[in-house]
Formats: sequence, structure tokens, C-alpha cells
Amino acid sequence: MSNLLKRLDANPLITPDVIGPSRPDFEVVCTLNPAAIRVGEETLLLVRVGERPIAEAGEVATVLFDADAGEPKIIRLRRDDPDLDARDPRAVTYKGEGLLTSLSHIRVARSRDGIHFRFDPSPAIFPSEPSEAYGCEDPRVVCLDGRYYVQYVIASTLGVGTSLAVTDDFRTFQKLGIIFPPPWNKDVAIFPEKVGGSYVCRHRPYKGYLNRPSIWTAYSPDLLCWGRHGATLSPKPGTWQGERVGSGAPPIRTDAGWLDIYHGADESGRYCLGAMLTDLERPERLICHSSRPVLEPQADYERTGFYGNCVFSNGLVALPDGTLTVYYGAADRICAAAVTTVEEMIAAARDEL
Amino acid sequence: MSNLLKRLDANPLITPDVIGPSRPDFEVVCTLNPAAIRVGEETLLLVRVGERPIAEAGEVATVLFDADAGEPKIIRLRRDDPDLDARDPRAVTYKGEGLLTSLSHIRVARSRDGIHFRFDPSPAIFPSEPSEAYGCEDPRVVCLDGRYYVQYVIASTLGVGTSLAVTDDFRTFQKLGIIFPPPWNKDVAIFPEKVGGSYVCRHRPYKGYLNRPSIWTAYSPDLLCWGRHGATLSPKPGTWQGERVGSGAPPIRTDAGWLDIYHGADESGRYCLGAMLTDLERPERLICHSSRPVLEPQADYERTGFYGNCVFSNGLVALPDGTLTVYYGAADRICAAAVTTVEEMIAAARDEL
Repeated sequence: MSNLLKRLDANPLITPDVIGPSRPDFEVVCTLNPAAIRVGEETLLLVRVGERPIAEAGEVATVLFDADAGEPKIIRLRRDDPDLDARDPRAVTYKGEGLLTSLSHIRVARSRDGIHFRFDPSPAIFPSEPSEAYGCEDPRVVCLDGRYYVQYVIASTLGVGTSLAVTDDFRTFQKLGIIFPPPWNKDVAIFPEKVGGSYVCRHRPYKGYLNRPSIWTAYSPDLLCWGRHGATLSPKPGTWQGERVGSGAPPIRTDAGWLDIYHGADESGRYCLGAMLTDLERPERLICHSSRPVLEPQADYERTGFYGNCVFSNGLVALPDGTLTVYYGAADRICAAAVTTVEEMIAAARDEL
Repeated sequence: MSNLLKRLDANPLITPDVIGPSRPDFEVVCTLNPAAIRVGEETLLLVRVGERPIAEAGEVATVLFDADAGEPKIIRLRRDDPDLDARDPRAVTYKGEGLLTSLSHIRVARSRDGIHFRFDPSPAIFPSEPSEAYGCEDPRVVCLDGRYYVQYVIASTLGVGTSLAVTDDFRTFQKLGIIFPPPWNKDVAIFPEKVGGSYVCRHRPYKGYLNRPSIWTAYSPDLLCWGRHGATLSPKPGTWQGERVGSGAPPIRTDAGWLDIYHGADESGRYCLGAMLTDLERPERLICHSSRPVLEPQADYERTGFYGNCVFSNGLVALPDGTLTVYYGAADRICAAAVTTVEEMIAAARDEL
């Protein structure tokens, strides 16, 4: 068992019961996959909050955002309907069309100590576009040129992609549009500074029939248009990252290279975290990656939940002393955190531990 | 039967037997899907040429480009090998990994009359990068700022994407890198002029589990980085374009809007051509599309070949009098052409014919 990251004793930090739904006939079913950033004296998490209509006995109730009507649309289906396939807890199929079982938005939670969080009363980023009909999910946040940019996943019948929003105060957010289009590109993490005069990001296009899902790197002149794509890390069949890899929080500049704490899943769908280093001047070029995970699902809240055996990080806070607090979603249901240091993660990426 | 386009009597215009292979132990198996442009007194086609090693009895011979060695690598497999699945004529699967059955490059063919073509002796764009190991395919060409830009499909174990090259003389071509990354984005067609100060293109990201493959529109400041993605046309289940749609040649500016002659395939995999109009100032916005095809596979050379029942266009030549010569690949094996007018295609897009 490979667990270099030390879980906080206070875990889980955020659970669905600590936050009220956005309307009284809904219930919050998951609070997961937080972006994280330190602003002044506060640690801010941007938490994905998944809600669904409260179901009656014998039915499946789900919801999507109807952009034409400007409000959520509730869908109630009989569990014994022969056109319904409800075996996956995350998505149902009805008459051949996919529907997610919950609608996610993004909510800000604030803390002085990085452990005890209080939610803002209203959503930060809520579906409003046709491309967001199935929700706004899994954000990353980065500070660039004095403003805060949020990369968040969008889902609809067009597929799953990534959009960008900007905020100056974490109260009001302006949507800037789709930066990586559907049908399937997520795990977009923009670097905290330009490299060679350009903005840089990781992304994870998914999935053709010749490839396994890989981490790619791209460049941009303006944060809106992305190109100069290069493949950075591909899955290693038969290992903990055999089926897919995807980026985590924005990479951290270190003397040893850009440090990423990323996720990988094996062929059974078990999600772990790993560490990798890439070239400072050409961050699409891999230097090394950990051959063992730095965090594996082990705690009860990581093994059992909405999607079990899963740790997934898209936010961390780095202190000037080299301490890293890695926030992560566990079992697609709750938020937890674990601590390590930059030095330790560099050693892990080099397989020196 | 819906065939507004009039096939040339000289069809097929180009067949695999008119061109020699790039080396004596290879054979040319397909000459298809040409880009087209009028330059001075000449019509130029950029033809996808697929080659494979000549196979011995009882074997399947295929080839990929080994970027490390800088040359093609030949792979010979016994037909009775239990690890081999060779049922698809376009691709085999060996020990679970996909391999294409031919390696494509792009060759220039020249004509004075647009009907009788002569090939240049050497390839224009040949695989050289790891991302091109399985070939360079299906080009589009557009003239911008006095230079000629070629968008061409790349294939490798990373998947299928689209790269850009530039030429001034159609003799030497400079590769500019990946503009739409693998694993699956092709049918990229850059517009012949800027719109609202930005370059514009169509693209076709493929494929998630919530969507059917759709035509998207994107913008760029520099032709290398693309963003501001918007969905333009999605498949219409149960029709001739029920399973997928994808762009053709660069769109044509008309008073009625941007005119695209695009392809659609139905659920059985039969490819036809259609016409659509989009907004001049916001070309991601659909005005209308033809509810019936403007060209359906009907001729012998369209019904039978490498992949039968397929007409696919990525090049056309528009004359000042409004005449359009639409070049197309038929059955993934040969090049053909058909003529129409801008006026007729606008009427087709409006369902007025």
C-alpha cells in the first residue's frame, strides 16, 4: 500500500449533509472534487455540488437545466420502465439517451485554517447554457494577471467539454465560453504563469479507438484559444494508471521541473494519485513520473460512496515553506485533504521513495 | 434518389493504377479524398494516396511510419494468426491494438481543365512525426494572406487529429503542428477569410457517450490556437445524416450566408453530401440545411471499393460565374467530380428544390 500523502484527521472535510439544496424539493447527494486557492487569509474551495429531485418510491428522479426555459427541468421515470437502464449510479439510459442522475453546480466554501469550511449561501457557477444542461463540474482555479480563472467541466447532449470563467472576488463570476469542446475533453488545468510568452495548460482529450486517454499540453495567446498540442503522459497498461491519466490542480513550478499531482485509473476503474515532473521550458516534455501511487483509496470514505475506490484531486494549496495541502474528492461523494511537501513529491516522481 | 450534383462523364478522374508507389515493394491501394484549389491557370488536387507492402500469399502486410528510425516499418502477419482480426478492410486488430491496413501520404496532382490530372513525382506531405505514424490523410486547402494552408488528418496510437501545414508554391510544405489534438478530431476546414477579425474553421470532435458526432465552429487569432467553440449542426436520427455529420471543403461566402457542402452518414454507415447555410457574421449559427442529400452513392465506383456506399468531399473549385466543381472521394478508393452552381446549392440548403 502506497500512501505518501498524510490524510487529515478531520477527514472527511465536507459531506453532502452540511449544505442545503438550491430548492426545497431537491436533495444534495454529493459535494466533491474541489478546486482550491489561498486568497489573503482564507483558503477557498470551489466545490462541485450535485443535487437531484427527491424521488418518490418506485421512481428515478433526475434533472437537467433547460436553457430555453432558464430553469431546471425535472424528469421522473418508473424504475420498472423497460426503456430505463439505471444500473450506473452516475447516469441512467432512457430510450437509448443518456441522462445524469444529478445536476451539479459549483459553490464556494471558505476557511481560515484550511480544515473547517463554511459554504457561501448561493451557487458560484450554475448551468445557464445549452452546453451546460447536465451540469457544471470539477473546477480548477488559477490566478493570472491578478484575476482568478476557473476551468470547469460542462456536460450536455453535445457531450462533455471544458469552459472558462473569471472572477475578481469569488462572489460574481463571468462565463467566457468553451475552451475545450465536447464531446469529451476535461481535466483542463491552466498553469499559474506563462511559459515562453504563452499561457499553458494540461488537458485530457478522450477517447478514440487507437488510444488510451492521455494527458496533453497546449499553449494559448489569450486563454480562450488553445493550440500547439503535445502528448505528455499516456497510461501504462497493467499498472495503477493502466486505463487513463488526467491532470489535477495547476502544476507547481519547482527547480526540478513543473510538478503535477495527477490521477490515474487502472483497468478496473480504481482511481489513485501520482506525481510527475515535466520540463520547465517545454512542459509538454515528461521528465519522470511515480511508478507507484502517492495516494490510493483506502479509507472508508474513499472506498465506498457514489463511485467507490476513487481519490481524485483538482485543487491544492502550496505554502511558501513547501508544504502542500492536497484537497481531493473521495468516492465521488465527499471532500477530503492530505498533506505532503514539494520535496517529497519530487522524490516520489523520481521513484526515490 | 436525390442527386442534384451532375457527375462528370470522365469519372472516375483518378484511380490507384495511375500513380506509382513511393518504393518498389509497395502498391498503391487508394487515391481518394482530394483537397482542391485553383492557382493561376491550374487546378490543383491534394490527393490522399494510400500504400501498403505487397503481401505474400496467406499473410496480411501493413506498414506504419517509425519516427525514431525516420522510415516506414513493415509488419507482416499470418492470416491464420489467432491474435489477428482482419475483418475490416481499413484496419486490423492485432493483440488488441489497432493498425491501419495502409499508410497514407498526400500528393499534388495538376490539371489545366480540372478533369485530366498529372501527379507530381514525389509526396507533398509524408509522415514524419510520432503523431503521424499511421499516416497523413484527407486534406483541406485554403488561401489566406497570400499563403496556402493545408489542414490534414494525422493518425497514430495517440488517435486521430488534425495538423496544419503551409506552402507558397505547392512544391515545399512546412509543417506547423497539431491544431486539433487526437484522439479524434478531423473534418477541419478553415474559412477563406477572417470573420469579425478572427480566423474561423469547422471541426468535428468525435465521440463521447452522450452525443452524436456534430459539426462545430471555432475561432483563432493565429491559425494555430483555436477556441470560442460553438456547435453548428448535429445529426438527425433516422435520416440520411442520422449518425454523423462533418464539414467538406472550406465554406463559400454567398449573399445568403456561408455555404457548406458537407457529408453525413446514416446509421448504416452510408455517406452522402448535403448543403447548409450559416450566418455570415456568426458562422457557428445554422440558418438551414438540405433535408435530402445533394449527392448519394449511386455509381459503381461509389458503391464498391475500399469502403462502399460512400461519397466524401473535402475540396471544390468555385468559378466567378457561380459554377462549382465538387471533387470527392468515392468508396474510399478513387477521386471523382460533379458540378453544380452556388445558386442551386443555396436552393438545396433551403429545401426549395
